[in-house]
Amino acid sequence: MNIDRYNSNGRFHEAVVYNGTLYLSGQVASGGGTVAEQAKECLDNLGKTLEKYGSDKSLILSATVYLADMNGFAEFNSVWDAWFENGTQPVRTCVGAQLAAPKYALEITLIAALKNKVH
Amino acid sequence: MNIDRYNSNGRFHEAVVYNGTLYLSGQVASGGGTVAEQAKECLDNLGKTLEKYGSDKSLILSATVYLADMNGFAEFNSVWDAWFENGTQPVRTCVGAQLAAPKYALEITLIAALKNKVH
Amino acid sequence: MNIDRYNSNGRFHEAVVYNGTLYLSGQVASGGGTVAEQAKECLDNLGKTLEKYGSDKSLILSATVYLADMNGFAEFNSVWDAWFENGTQPVRTCVGAQLAAPKYALEITLIAALKNKVH
Repeated sequence: MNIDRYNSNGRFHEAVVYNGTLYLSGQVASGGGTVAEQAKECLDNLGKTLEKYGSDKSLILSATVYLADMNGFAEFNSVWDAWFENGTQPVRTCVGAQLAAPKYALEITLIAALKNKVH
Repeated sequence: MNIDRYNSNGRFHEAVVYNGTLYLSGQVASGGGTVAEQAKECLDNLGKTLEKYGSDKSLILSATVYLADMNGFAEFNSVWDAWFENGTQPVRTCVGAQLAAPKYALEITLIAALKNKVH
Repeated sequence: MNIDRYNSNGRFHEAVVYNGTLYLSGQVASGGGTVAEQAKECLDNLGKTLEKYGSDKSLILSATVYLADMNGFAEFNSVWDAWFENGTQPVRTCVGAQLAAPKYALEITLIAALKNKVH
């Protein structure tokens, strides 16, 4: 087996692949705007990131969602719920946590399967 | 390899299986009561959930525990310590985080192995 | 496949290996001192732990970093950035969370590949 690492910023890689599993770094939106806007931007970016590295949004296994303020839980969920094609939702954990800067309302960490491993 | 997903609520699946590994969504107790009561209920429910999807409590690989208040750490640990058969404890990370509603004292996220893969 | 568990304290194992993947428990430093000092101590200990169980710091797949105070983010990053050989950084998520005792500035949870599985 190999470890394949993609798109380093010198601090972490955006994606690491090992044993048929794709690990992504925690993804934030560009910051500012509403929780719903950040959720949409972040999820859409994650969808593109997954495709870049041989997966896609229907192959997400696990998601950990960190909200800067759990008062935004329902607003986040409304975007999340609409984003997935039914039947493809991953397992999920969603908790409140302090994020890297106040402009971020949320951060999402995904583990996904690879297209060429799933039959 | 397949992705097998179980028990969706339209937002996330309770369990996803891929490559011999079972991922569970973050599990809470029904809420209210003491930290110890929630810990026991949550762990017992997780034990049943693991069995439903081809694993069991002796096959947990990794646990992430989120406590709403780390002042409940010792109380949580007393239930945790008694729940596992010695030698079967997973790796664990336990941190404080805001949960989905004030009635929840804790949330636990597990990754486990499958019975039919372990010799 | 086997589950191999290492170094239990009766509460959790320090390391669990399954399917070519090494899971480590959340690691803290001994506590006290600056964020930079704790980061260095914690990462150096993790490096030794990885080697003890058949991996090493160049084979880390994923890191979750919990900081007790995100004001220490830049200070943490300066140590993190220097610790990795370029090209070997994992994916990373870094959030703020309450830790087990006030003396801890950070806690790090790693998933890594095994040396004898990587070609």
